[in-house]
Amino acid sequence: MSGAFWEADPGELLRVREGFALGDVDPAATPGTSGGKKGGIAELARAAQELRGLQEKLFAQSRLGAPDRLLVVLQAMDAAGKGGIVNHVFSLVEPYGLRLTAFKAPTAEERAHDFLWRVERRLPGPGVIGVFDRSHYEDVLIQRVRGLAPPEEIERRYGAIVDFERRFVEDGGRIVKIMLHISPEEQAERLLSRLDDPEKHWKYNAGDVEERVHWAAYMEAFGAAIARSDAPSAPWFVVPANAKWYARAAVQRIVIGELQRIDPRWPDPGFDVAAERARVEATLGLRWP
Amino acid sequence: MSGAFWEADPGELLRVREGFALGDVDPAATPGTSGGKKGGIAELARAAQELRGLQEKLFAQSRLGAPDRLLVVLQAMDAAGKGGIVNHVFSLVEPYGLRLTAFKAPTAEERAHDFLWRVERRLPGPGVIGVFDRSHYEDVLIQRVRGLAPPEEIERRYGAIVDFERRFVEDGGRIVKIMLHISPEEQAERLLSRLDDPEKHWKYNAGDVEERVHWAAYMEAFGAAIARSDAPSAPWFVVPANAKWYARAAVQRIVIGELQRIDPRWPDPGFDVAAERARVEATLGLRWP
Repeated sequence: MSGAFWEADPGELLRVREGFALGDVDPAATPGTSGGKKGGIAELARAAQELRGLQEKLFAQSRLGAPDRLLVVLQAMDAAGKGGIVNHVFSLVEPYGLRLTAFKAPTAEERAHDFLWRVERRLPGPGVIGVFDRSHYEDVLIQRVRGLAPPEEIERRYGAIVDFERRFVEDGGRIVKIMLHISPEEQAERLLSRLDDPEKHWKYNAGDVEERVHWAAYMEAFGAAIARSDAPSAPWFVVPANAKWYARAAVQRIVIGELQRIDPRWPDPGFDVAAERARVEATLGLRWP
Repeated sequence: MSGAFWEADPGELLRVREGFALGDVDPAATPGTSGGKKGGIAELARAAQELRGLQEKLFAQSRLGAPDRLLVVLQAMDAAGKGGIVNHVFSLVEPYGLRLTAFKAPTAEERAHDFLWRVERRLPGPGVIGVFDRSHYEDVLIQRVRGLAPPEEIERRYGAIVDFERRFVEDGGRIVKIMLHISPEEQAERLLSRLDDPEKHWKYNAGDVEERVHWAAYMEAFGAAIARSDAPSAPWFVVPANAKWYARAAVQRIVIGELQRIDPRWPDPGFDVAAERARVEATLGLRWP
């Protein structure tokens, strides 16, 4: 299906496995392909139809009661390319079948509830691909690094996350969790390029520099969160993201792989086609005005 | 901007005016262009970048506090092409800046509230284009035709809708309301083609035939709703929709026109670029692992 671009399935190569260590992943690598930037951009365009076709079937079968749905969790350091994934991978599926949520710092109302409250409300329904740009993992990442919650609360949250994700899967969902992995050097370049271009100034957030200096602590927090929440039904993928074209094509391929495992089919509504045809034809004389 | 395809602005040609009568609009017409199907498809692709660029600016400026937002209301008889408008016009804007709602028959919870309750909850926030596939107008269309609400309640709703839309506009919103106008002959063809293709069976709804026979009553209800709710700040457009390529290109052009009137600009966050650059550069020594 993936033609010449993918020599090996990134869904296999980038999947977190026993003994995983974040320090072993090179953010500049492009495993599974030697297609290069030009090939990656062409693959993204080619496979967009494949993704769209699978998603249309997923949506169609849900109209007849199939429970299947997919949640894609995107986590990353700032400027790692989450927005680019949304705009270049998921913007190509039909809007009816996409539910995107960009989680920000919790509001007062959200803080008054358990940390999973706002996330639960944004889970995709049957037939829909839900995309979380940031997620409940912020509550064990920034909150851990910045000491916004005590260690025992962070511990509790790991368990709560695992239970929460398992319930979603039992309900007919699949989850893929993706860390876009860039190097601190690459982040600096991207922040500087936002400063270089007045059309990108609105994307620059002075607070990103403050988080940046805690890089090592963030990597430790990512490593712990991944180790504690990776599960066969809710796997983590660490996607090298210094090369945007690679990260986009790899995420697209991982999502296609998950949809293929769901294997959605055009549903059969079970009506009598000939009888319905006759009903429509009986109204053919209708004219207006 | 619109090049050779549009010889006249469909935003002007299709805008409802004093003395408007739905019976005067030919659903098979293609006013404003002689570009034909091939030209229409090319125009749709060309102007997609124009729409996307405007929407990116609308979104960007909202991050710095601009209140502007746009609501597009799509109403039509079944199979008139609302879904195609969403998938071919709005699917090309960034998902972050699009909020799509497909309104179905109201749920028990929704029926327990005023008819505008569920609509209010789905209005787009600043920077976002909201698209309603069906809307509060169902409450004065099907509910009128099928006698689901008494005439005095329908009368009350016209007024409530006008007030509701005015408040949205006062809040920084713009509204365009679009009726996709097909002929009953075209609808029959489309229903039959859904029956011809097993991949489209899930889109066929036996109930559509029951609504279809009330065509004249629906047209009367549309005419009344349009006359009662058309306003300079919340205008109605009746778009001939027998030719899908025409309806899509025309709606795209109408939406672009509205965004041009908003005239969104790249915002200036007002930070000191040199100082921020120095802050980032001070962290360039950061290495991990």
